[in-house]
Amino acid sequence: MAQTVADRRDVDFVLHEQLHVEQLDRHDKFREFNKKTVDLIVSEARNLALKELLPCQREADEEGCTFDSGRVMVPKVFHRAYDLFRQGEWIAMCDDPHWGGQGMPATVALAANNFFNGANFPFMLHNILIHGAGKLVERFGTDKQKNLYLKNMYTGKWGGSMLLTEPEAGSDVGALTTRAVKNDDGTYSISGSKIFISSGENDLVENIIHPVLARIDGAPAGTAGISLFLVPKYWVNDDGSTGDFNDVVCTGIEEKMGIHGSPTCSMTLGGKGACRGTLLGDENKGMRAMFVMMNEARLHVGMQGFACAGASYLNALNYAKARIQGAALTAPKGSSGVSIIQHPDIRRILLTMKTVSEGMRSLLFYTGFLEDMAAVSKSDTEKAGYQGLIDVLIPVAKGYITDRAFDMCSMGVQVFGGYGFTKEYPQEQLLRDCKITQIYEGTNGIQAMDLLGRKIGLNHGQAFMDLVAEVQKTIAAAKKDASLISVANILETTLTHLKETAGKLSADLGSENMLTAFAHAHPFLDVTGDTLMGWMLLWRAVTAARKLAENPKKKDLAFYQGQITGARFFINTMLPVAQAKMAVIQTGDTSALDMDEASFGS
Amino acid sequence: MAQTVADRRDVDFVLHEQLHVEQLDRHDKFREFNKKTVDLIVSEARNLALKELLPCQREADEEGCTFDSGRVMVPKVFHRAYDLFRQGEWIAMCDDPHWGGQGMPATVALAANNFFNGANFPFMLHNILIHGAGKLVERFGTDKQKNLYLKNMYTGKWGGSMLLTEPEAGSDVGALTTRAVKNDDGTYSISGSKIFISSGENDLVENIIHPVLARIDGAPAGTAGISLFLVPKYWVNDDGSTGDFNDVVCTGIEEKMGIHGSPTCSMTLGGKGACRGTLLGDENKGMRAMFVMMNEARLHVGMQGFACAGASYLNALNYAKARIQGAALTAPKGSSGVSIIQHPDIRRILLTMKTVSEGMRSLLFYTGFLEDMAAVSKSDTEKAGYQGLIDVLIPVAKGYITDRAFDMCSMGVQVFGGYGFTKEYPQEQLLRDCKITQIYEGTNGIQAMDLLGRKIGLNHGQAFMDLVAEVQKTIAAAKKDASLISVANILETTLTHLKETAGKLSADLGSENMLTAFAHAHPFLDVTGDTLMGWMLLWRAVTAARKLAENPKKKDLAFYQGQITGARFFINTMLPVAQAKMAVIQTGDTSALDMDEASFGS
Repeated sequence: MAQTVADRRDVDFVLHEQLHVEQLDRHDKFREFNKKTVDLIVSEARNLALKELLPCQREADEEGCTFDSGRVMVPKVFHRAYDLFRQGEWIAMCDDPHWGGQGMPATVALAANNFFNGANFPFMLHNILIHGAGKLVERFGTDKQKNLYLKNMYTGKWGGSMLLTEPEAGSDVGALTTRAVKNDDGTYSISGSKIFISSGENDLVENIIHPVLARIDGAPAGTAGISLFLVPKYWVNDDGSTGDFNDVVCTGIEEKMGIHGSPTCSMTLGGKGACRGTLLGDENKGMRAMFVMMNEARLHVGMQGFACAGASYLNALNYAKARIQGAALTAPKGSSGVSIIQHPDIRRILLTMKTVSEGMRSLLFYTGFLEDMAAVSKSDTEKAGYQGLIDVLIPVAKGYITDRAFDMCSMGVQVFGGYGFTKEYPQEQLLRDCKITQIYEGTNGIQAMDLLGRKIGLNHGQAFMDLVAEVQKTIAAAKKDASLISVANILETTLTHLKETAGKLSADLGSENMLTAFAHAHPFLDVTGDTLMGWMLLWRAVTAARKLAENPKKKDLAFYQGQITGARFFINTMLPVAQAKMAVIQTGDTSALDMDEASFGS
Repeated sequence: MAQTVADRRDVDFVLHEQLHVEQLDRHDKFREFNKKTVDLIVSEARNLALKELLPCQREADEEGCTFDSGRVMVPKVFHRAYDLFRQGEWIAMCDDPHWGGQGMPATVALAANNFFNGANFPFMLHNILIHGAGKLVERFGTDKQKNLYLKNMYTGKWGGSMLLTEPEAGSDVGALTTRAVKNDDGTYSISGSKIFISSGENDLVENIIHPVLARIDGAPAGTAGISLFLVPKYWVNDDGSTGDFNDVVCTGIEEKMGIHGSPTCSMTLGGKGACRGTLLGDENKGMRAMFVMMNEARLHVGMQGFACAGASYLNALNYAKARIQGAALTAPKGSSGVSIIQHPDIRRILLTMKTVSEGMRSLLFYTGFLEDMAAVSKSDTEKAGYQGLIDVLIPVAKGYITDRAFDMCSMGVQVFGGYGFTKEYPQEQLLRDCKITQIYEGTNGIQAMDLLGRKIGLNHGQAFMDLVAEVQKTIAAAKKDASLISVANILETTLTHLKETAGKLSADLGSENMLTAFAHAHPFLDVTGDTLMGWMLLWRAVTAARKLAENPKKKDLAFYQGQITGARFFINTMLPVAQAKMAVIQTGDTSALDMDEASFGS
C-alpha cells in the first residue's frame, strides 16, 4: 500500500542513516532507546496515526468545536482518539520519567509527531499543550507543584494550555494587563482576559492546568514585570483532591479558517473575584520561563507545518500516479492518456514538494537531535555549543519551514486540480490548517526579527559561525564525490554569500541603517532557510551516495538515487535564486521605509 | 472614510492617466462613453459593491449553498443582491446593445468588475457565467437562437453556465464522452455527466441556458470531434414560451474550500432520455468556439484573483494603520506602542501587496484596453496586432496574476496576526476564495504550457516581440527622467534576459529538449509575469513623474510619490531575483525529468 501521512522509509533514513539517532543509546540518559526500540516506537506511532487519527481528520474538521454557556465540546470523534493516545502514553514522550514522562530522545518524539501531526494536527494541538504546560511545571515548579499536577497532566487525565495573548497584547507580550495580587496564604488572585487560547476549555479532560502570564501589582512595565502563574480550572487541594471551580471562564471560541478540531478560547479569569493561582518560578521572571520553553514550542510549530506539507506531498504523489489525464507530450496525436506524474510540470511540482518537505524533515529532526546531544553533553562548553546551534536554527525551523510548508500545501492542492479544492480530498484542509503555523507562537515576521536581531549576533556571532562550520563539513564531504562536486560548489558559494549578507545586516543593526536591516529581515530568513535546506539535501545526497556504493537492494536503489537527483534539483534551481535575493538584501533598498503613510493609500 | 474593496483613486489613475480610456469616445463604437459617463459607471458600480455586495460576503460564505432533490438554493441574501444587480443592468456590460447589452468598453467593465469581485466574488461568479453563456450565443448563435435566448439572459431573467468538465476529462477536454445524437427535427439528444459546473443549478433564475460540450456520434476522437450545444433547463418553444423540463438534472453540489456562495454542480443530462439541445456554431467546431471565449474568461479569472488580493491589501492597510502593537524599533525602551504600519516588516509586506496588486490592476485593465482597441481597429492588420498582444498576455493575466494573488491574500492574513485566521475579518475568506482562481478555467500549469507552447511562438514570434517593443517604449520614456533611469535600466536588462530565455525555450521546443522546456514552463510564466509587472509599475511611475512636474494637489502628491517609490521597490527587489530565475531556466536542469517514478516515493 502506498505511503500516506509520512514516508516511513524517509523517516528511517533521517533517523538512522543521516543522524544515527540509534547511537544515542551509548549515553546513559537514552540507554533504553536502541535501534529496535526506536523502530518500535515509530511503528506504533505510525500505526496509531494511520488507523485512528487520520480517519477522523475530516469528520473533526466538519463538526468542529461547539460552545455552550462556558462549556466547550471538541469533535465527538476525538474522544476515542484521545483515550487511545493516553493509553499509548504519548503525551509526555520526552519528559522526565521520574514525573511520568517517557524520557525518549527529542528526535524520536519528532518522528512520532511527524506521523501524528501529518494525520491530524488539530487533534495533536490539544496534546502538545498538555506536554508544554507540564514541561513548564517540570522545569520551574516547586516539588509541591510537581507532585500536585504532573502525574495527572502527563497521563492526560488533566489538560493544559498557555494563557499569554490579550486583545491588546499579541506580538507585544509586554503590553499585557492581567493582574496578580498576592494573598496572605501565598497564592495570588488573578484577574484579566485572555484570547486565542488553544484548548483553554474542552470536554476531554477532568481539569485543566493553565500557565498564565500576568503582572503582579507594582511590577515594572513591559516584559520585565511579567510573572508566570499556575491557575487550575478546578482548584487542587494540598492532598491532591479536586476542589472548587476556580473562576476561569471560557467566554467564547473563535470561528476560524482551519484547525476546526482545536478550540480557540477567550478566557476571563477572576470575573467573580474568585480566581487563584500559584507562582511558577520567580516573580517577574515569567518571560524568561517562556523563552526557555519557546524553542521547543516553535520547533513543534515547524513540525506541524511540515507535517501538513509532507502529507500533502504524499497525497499528491499518490494521486499523480493514479490520475490519468492527457497523452504524453511526446506521444503521437490521438495517443491515450497517461498518469499525470508523467507530465513535466507535475514532475516539477512533485519534486519541489518532495525535496522541500524532505529537507524540512531533516532540518527539524536535526534540531531535535541537537537537543538530545545537548542533553547528554559532557561539559558546559559542549552543551553551550549545541544550544547555540539550536538557538540559531529555531526561527528558521519555525518561520522558514511554515512559510514554505504553506506554499507546499498550496501546490498539493494544484496537483489535484478541481478536486483539490473540494472536501472530498484532504488537500484543502491541510492548506487551511497549515496557515495558522505561520501566525501563532510568534508570527513569522517575529521569527525573522528574532533571527536577525538576536540570533545572528548570539555569542558575538559564534553560534552562527558554528552553524556555518557544520555546513562546511557536509560540503567538504560532498566534494570527495565526483557526482556531487558541482552542487557542493553551488552550496559553498551560497554559504559564502549568506555569511556576507549576515555580516552586512549585523553591521547595519548597530548603525543608522537599523530600520533598513529590519526591512530585510524576512527576506534574510528566507535565504537562510534556503541555504540550510540546500545543506540538508546535500547531506542526504552524501549519505545516499555512500549507500549506493554498497550495492543496496533494488528498492533502496530508487530511494537513494532520488536523494541525489533531489539535491541536484533543489541546489541547481533554488540556490542561484537565493543568491540573487541575498544580493538584493545587501543593496539595502529603503523604499519600504521611504513611503509616506499617505502614499500607501487613503 | 478609508477605501475598501478597491482604491477608487488608483482605478481612476489607470483608467484616465495611464490608459486614457476616456479617449475611446473618439470612436463611434464607444462614443457614448466619455469621461463623465465612465466615471458615473464606476461610481455606481462602487456604490453597489460597497452597499450591497460587500455586506453579504461573509453571510453567504457561512450559509453556503444547499442541495435538495435536484434543487439548489444559493445563500438567501443573494436574492436581493441579484435583483439589484439585474436592475442596474450589470450582467451584459460589454455585450452588443442590439441584443440587450450595454456596449461599454471592456476596460470600463473591468473597473466595475474590480469593485464587484473585490466585494463578493462568489456572487459575481453567477453573473459572469450568464454573460459568458450569452456571449457564446451572441457570437456563434443563429438569429433564431439569439432571439430566443439573449434578451432573457442579458437581463438576468434566465441564467447561464458552461458544461465542459467530466470526471475523466478535466485538463484533457478532448477525453469527454457526453454524446449528442441528431434528431429528425434538427435538435440533438444529449446524454452524459458533467462535473464542476458553477451555477449549473440555482434558485435565482427561472430558466438556465447551458452551453454543453459533447461529441456527436461518429465524430473524430479528441478535441477535433467536439461540438457545442445549447441545452436549456426548460425547453424554450419557438414562440419564446417556456416548455417542458429538459431532463437536465443536478445530482449534487461540491463541498469546497471557498466560494461557498457559488454552487458547484454535478449534472446529468438525458438520464431519462429526454434532454435535447440545439447546435451552437458548426459541428465539431466546439473547441474553436471555446477558445474564442477563453481569452475573456481567463482574463476575468485573473480579475477575480486580483480583486481578492486588492481587497486584502486595503483591509491590511487599514488594519495596519489602526492596530497599535509594540513600540517603534528606534524608540527608547518602555516607549508606548505605535500603529504597526510603522514597523519595517509590516511596511515591506504592505508595499509588496500594494505594488503587486496595483501592477495587476494595470496589467488587467491594459489587456482589456487592447480588446477595446482591437474592437475599434481600422484595419485587419491593426486588429491582428492588438489580438497578438492579447493572446500573449492572457496566460499571464490568468496564471501569473492568480498565483501572485493567492500569495498576496496570504500576506493579507499575516498582517492581521491571529485575527487574520478568524472569520471575524474577511482576510481568510479572501484567501480561501482566491485559491480556486489558480485552478479553474485551465490550471495555472496549463496556462504556463499555453504561454510557452503556443503564445511565445505565435505568428512566428511576432506577437511576443510586439509586446517586448511596447515594454521598450516605457523604458525609453523612463530614461528621460533622471529619477527613473536606474530602475529603467534594471527593467531593460530583465527584458533582455527574458527575450534570451524565451528564445532558448522556443529553440528547445523543436528539439529533443522539448520536455525539458516544459519542465521550466511554469518558472517561465513567473518571470514573464514579473517582467510585465515591472513594466506596468514603471509605466505608472513615468505617468506619476509627469504629473508631479505639474504641481499636483497635496493628496495627489502622496499618491504620485507612492507610485514612484513603489516602482523602485518592486524593480529593485523583485527583478534581480527574476533575472536569476531566468538564468536557472536557461541552464535547462533536467532533474525533474530524470527522476524514476519509484524515486519519488512508494
